[in-house]
Amino acid sequence: MTAAINAPSQPATNRLGTIHGVGLGPGDPDLMSLRAHRLVTNARHIAYFRKKGAKGRARALVDGLLHPEAVEFPMDYPLTTETPFGDPAYNTALSTFYAECTAHLASLAEGGEDVVVLCEGDPFFYGSFMHLYTRLDGVTPLQVVPATTGMSAAWTATGQPITWGDDVLSVLMATLPEDDLTRHMLAADALVVMKIGRNIDKLRRALRRAGKYEAAWLVEHASTKEQTVQRLAETQGPAPYFSIVIVHGTGRRP
Amino acid sequence: MTAAINAPSQPATNRLGTIHGVGLGPGDPDLMSLRAHRLVTNARHIAYFRKKGAKGRARALVDGLLHPEAVEFPMDYPLTTETPFGDPAYNTALSTFYAECTAHLASLAEGGEDVVVLCEGDPFFYGSFMHLYTRLDGVTPLQVVPATTGMSAAWTATGQPITWGDDVLSVLMATLPEDDLTRHMLAADALVVMKIGRNIDKLRRALRRAGKYEAAWLVEHASTKEQTVQRLAETQGPAPYFSIVIVHGTGRRP
Repeated sequence: MTAAINAPSQPATNRLGTIHGVGLGPGDPDLMSLRAHRLVTNARHIAYFRKKGAKGRARALVDGLLHPEAVEFPMDYPLTTETPFGDPAYNTALSTFYAECTAHLASLAEGGEDVVVLCEGDPFFYGSFMHLYTRLDGVTPLQVVPATTGMSAAWTATGQPITWGDDVLSVLMATLPEDDLTRHMLAADALVVMKIGRNIDKLRRALRRAGKYEAAWLVEHASTKEQTVQRLAETQGPAPYFSIVIVHGTGRRP
Repeated sequence: MTAAINAPSQPATNRLGTIHGVGLGPGDPDLMSLRAHRLVTNARHIAYFRKKGAKGRARALVDGLLHPEAVEFPMDYPLTTETPFGDPAYNTALSTFYAECTAHLASLAEGGEDVVVLCEGDPFFYGSFMHLYTRLDGVTPLQVVPATTGMSAAWTATGQPITWGDDVLSVLMATLPEDDLTRHMLAADALVVMKIGRNIDKLRRALRRAGKYEAAWLVEHASTKEQTVQRLAETQGPAPYFSIVIVHGTGRRP
């Protein structure tokens, strides 16, 4: 009995835990995959990015699904998503932040714990998880669960297919310079534009120059109860950062 | 009692059934959404496209999931997916085929039956269901369930994120002329190329001209047990029509 007193309550293990980057889809929990749902409901360690002071969009998406003993690790962005990228402090602040998040996740995995990182949309498609993934690659086992993207939910919400036949689809960030946006808009048949927010006036100008303004749709909060679908030309003022602009392709169809 | 004898065994109804275009995702049934799974397992009428003589890839994806009383409506393509589009018989044969499929689905919906049309990938993203959807729009109630695309499964399989920061992603069909492919490849940061099959030699030439051949990955059967991931430059000969080529973006990252 005496020997057992000093034994660790949990046996030491050499097994590394796995960090799962789990795509939750566009916002409607019913569009989560069977695998994502199973990983989320069984997880004992959950991590997610959020804007400081907010609940977190990914976290809100799994409300009511988490295991009662799940330990949560919220990762609060030191800057908003709209801080100018030109700011020299931007890269430093974010890379320090990602390094701190990575260190905590790695310590959990080294203790044998699996962690589910909640990801909006598809983790490898403009996702924040990618910044953890590249830092953890080779350090701990990693698994990524692909998911339905916000753009799929957005074009589905318009009630029109996005691409036909040989249509070229280009996905553009509204953070690009106006001339670049215009050039890519002219070259493609179908368009998805993301990261809109305060870039919307520049986006309107670029679409007009490319002759595609009248064909553009603005979709906000795709697949959720707050979803709205409007012709972009019939809207005014700013749009949420996570809204999506859609221009449908018109290619070959029998 | 006498009056009841001539009464219809099913009460007549004015309710139109709904045609559901249900995205099943990239191939792994575990990546199906909760909504898709529920619709598929409860459906009494299931329809799906398939190559004549084959079981059908969408149908195979739901093996073991269908309701025991489900009535199946396989829609056999009159042509293979690789018939040259220039062939004048192509449009006629396909539009006749889609009209026949549509008529059957509409008759089910007019009888008050809901129908689940099984769709590989995301229904509105280069999907065959779109040809039924546009013909049924305004005729019967329609619902579309977005899903994880084959391209998401493909870039996830490579173990590298597809897009960073402001990267421009272009989705190209290998059926395009070589000069068009090259031009779009030069303009974009990240690439997805689909509909490869016998277009692979042209695709290799276009990637070489755009300086992106060495960076290209060939993913076959993404997310399934048959999945393979290879550098395109290390492969030879033909590729399946449903394989996907990926070139990752290398954009801004802190």
